[in-house]
Amino acid sequence: MALKRIGTQTVKLSNPPSIISTASIVGPKEGEGPLKDYFDVILEDDLWGQDSFEKSEAKLQEEAIKLAIQNADLSPNQIEYLFSGDLLNQITSSGYAARQLAIPYFGLYGACSTMTESLSLGAMIVDGGFADKVVCATSSHFSSAERQFRFPLEYGAQRPFSSQWTVTGAGATVLSSTGKGPYITYVTTGKIQDYGLVDANNMGGAMAPAAIDTISQHFKDTGYNPEDYDLIITGDLASIGKSILLDLMKKAGYDLSKNYTDCGVKIFDNVKQDTHAGGSGCGCAAVVFNGYIYKEMVKGNLNRVLLVATGALHSSTSILQDESIPGIAHAVTIDNMVF
Amino acid sequence: MALKRIGTQTVKLSNPPSIISTASIVGPKEGEGPLKDYFDVILEDDLWGQDSFEKSEAKLQEEAIKLAIQNADLSPNQIEYLFSGDLLNQITSSGYAARQLAIPYFGLYGACSTMTESLSLGAMIVDGGFADKVVCATSSHFSSAERQFRFPLEYGAQRPFSSQWTVTGAGATVLSSTGKGPYITYVTTGKIQDYGLVDANNMGGAMAPAAIDTISQHFKDTGYNPEDYDLIITGDLASIGKSILLDLMKKAGYDLSKNYTDCGVKIFDNVKQDTHAGGSGCGCAAVVFNGYIYKEMVKGNLNRVLLVATGALHSSTSILQDESIPGIAHAVTIDNMVF
Repeated sequence: MALKRIGTQTVKLSNPPSIISTASIVGPKEGEGPLKDYFDVILEDDLWGQDSFEKSEAKLQEEAIKLAIQNADLSPNQIEYLFSGDLLNQITSSGYAARQLAIPYFGLYGACSTMTESLSLGAMIVDGGFADKVVCATSSHFSSAERQFRFPLEYGAQRPFSSQWTVTGAGATVLSSTGKGPYITYVTTGKIQDYGLVDANNMGGAMAPAAIDTISQHFKDTGYNPEDYDLIITGDLASIGKSILLDLMKKAGYDLSKNYTDCGVKIFDNVKQDTHAGGSGCGCAAVVFNGYIYKEMVKGNLNRVLLVATGALHSSTSILQDESIPGIAHAVTIDNMVF
Repeated sequence: MALKRIGTQTVKLSNPPSIISTASIVGPKEGEGPLKDYFDVILEDDLWGQDSFEKSEAKLQEEAIKLAIQNADLSPNQIEYLFSGDLLNQITSSGYAARQLAIPYFGLYGACSTMTESLSLGAMIVDGGFADKVVCATSSHFSSAERQFRFPLEYGAQRPFSSQWTVTGAGATVLSSTGKGPYITYVTTGKIQDYGLVDANNMGGAMAPAAIDTISQHFKDTGYNPEDYDLIITGDLASIGKSILLDLMKKAGYDLSKNYTDCGVKIFDNVKQDTHAGGSGCGCAAVVFNGYIYKEMVKGNLNRVLLVATGALHSSTSILQDESIPGIAHAVTIDNMVF
């Protein structure tokens, strides 16, 4: 068997799975942002005919998965595994979406790192010969997340400038053992980093150390440098986490100033849309990847991307119990060409 | 590459990973039950020196993982991936345990199916050549689960007879690409089954259809029959779910009366310990497997076991929003011999 492990945290896929389709669905606010032309569906109403925000989020995820499968000219019974998760307690958006689809299901929890957690596991399972076709998916919803993690919306709490705006959106990716690319070629799996931050309104600061650790480890393991990528993009560090990352990576000897950005910075217009530090939520990396990045790769405008979704693994209970916020980041390399 | 997929939901591992060690830690009540001699550590106090039940659960999981690694004469930096999850919101027991261990970490949510979800993914990742050594783990805690899913303990709510007692315990398994067994030879991944039950005090009834579906599919996919196993054991259907399963499997043409039981039935003495229908929680299948089953396999008293952990994927929010309880069950075959 070809050597798959390289370095300490990375695997190089020997038969890189191809992304054969994606889907992205977003809420009204995301549909007014700078990436609006890349999304498959933009909702007019974030309840989408449901009687709760939580049910709306489950529908978002279900419809994104169905659309991705349909975009690949497949039906759900041709998908061997579904890998998905979300932010809600007991990941109910994912569970109720999976119930409607009758696909063998692995539920994941990686908070906002879920998009690359699902792509990492999905890619290894396809590469290993355990499946021909899998779907990787995640979702978040501003209104279900705010009331679970912070305050009831009706309370009208003032948001500090370090806070981020949870993306209402869902994204899904179909991976196949055969296809014309883009391909997933490397998977670098993160370790938890916790620098002791306790402010649940500064997720970017809490997650930046994990992104720095995973990206640095990816370079060490693979021998690649920042300039080997057209784009290096984190999940949802937003503006505060992005500047921390740029500073600390530079100190570590990696200049990311030319080709690095963050999904939370890309998705909203910070001046016009008043989202403070930027976007967040599992859906942030999900719709930016399955909408913008994938479509730019298919057009050939991007050929090699390092996608690094980032998660904060606290709960509202753990914060009340004076625990700090553990961060994690998982990286996948997405290549238009396989060498 | 050898054919790994058989039937529609099963993979046959081509280089079956070996279980090289396990660990189990339980609370005081579990330590007074019929399986007490099989557990590595029995706590005298279920807070274990921590100032909350949630922190105690995180410590349970961390110590179980450390002990399993130590029992294999390894150190945490020799483990390539940790697969774990638990019942708490945002699986904080697993996240805070993983933080202390610095092992690349995949967080899972499968409710009480987590032990076999983690063994399924861990086994495929090792079999596929992506890792030599992984740890699969989970935990639950009576006091953290009760107050999250049902009522504050201080409220003294009366428990109906269909209710189950969440196990305080954690279990961990080290899988290796080489070893003397027992081996994981087959993985059958479940689809969600939801028959519309809404009673959060009857988990066995809600999860039984998922177990029936996965076990039947395992037999169809592999061609095995109940008598090919020394033991078929579900995760935590307890007495009500067990009798539903026996009845409905018989109607489907499978007689499981001779070699089937449930971890939730085994772990407590139903007469003396007043647990009503029996045990439940991620920790139930975890400690029964990593304690009792593994040790009986090593002794040669059991040679072939089908372990089917079962999960109920609701949340307290989804129940209040009139959603029913989706169930899932994942099966793994554990063999002393590889053919």
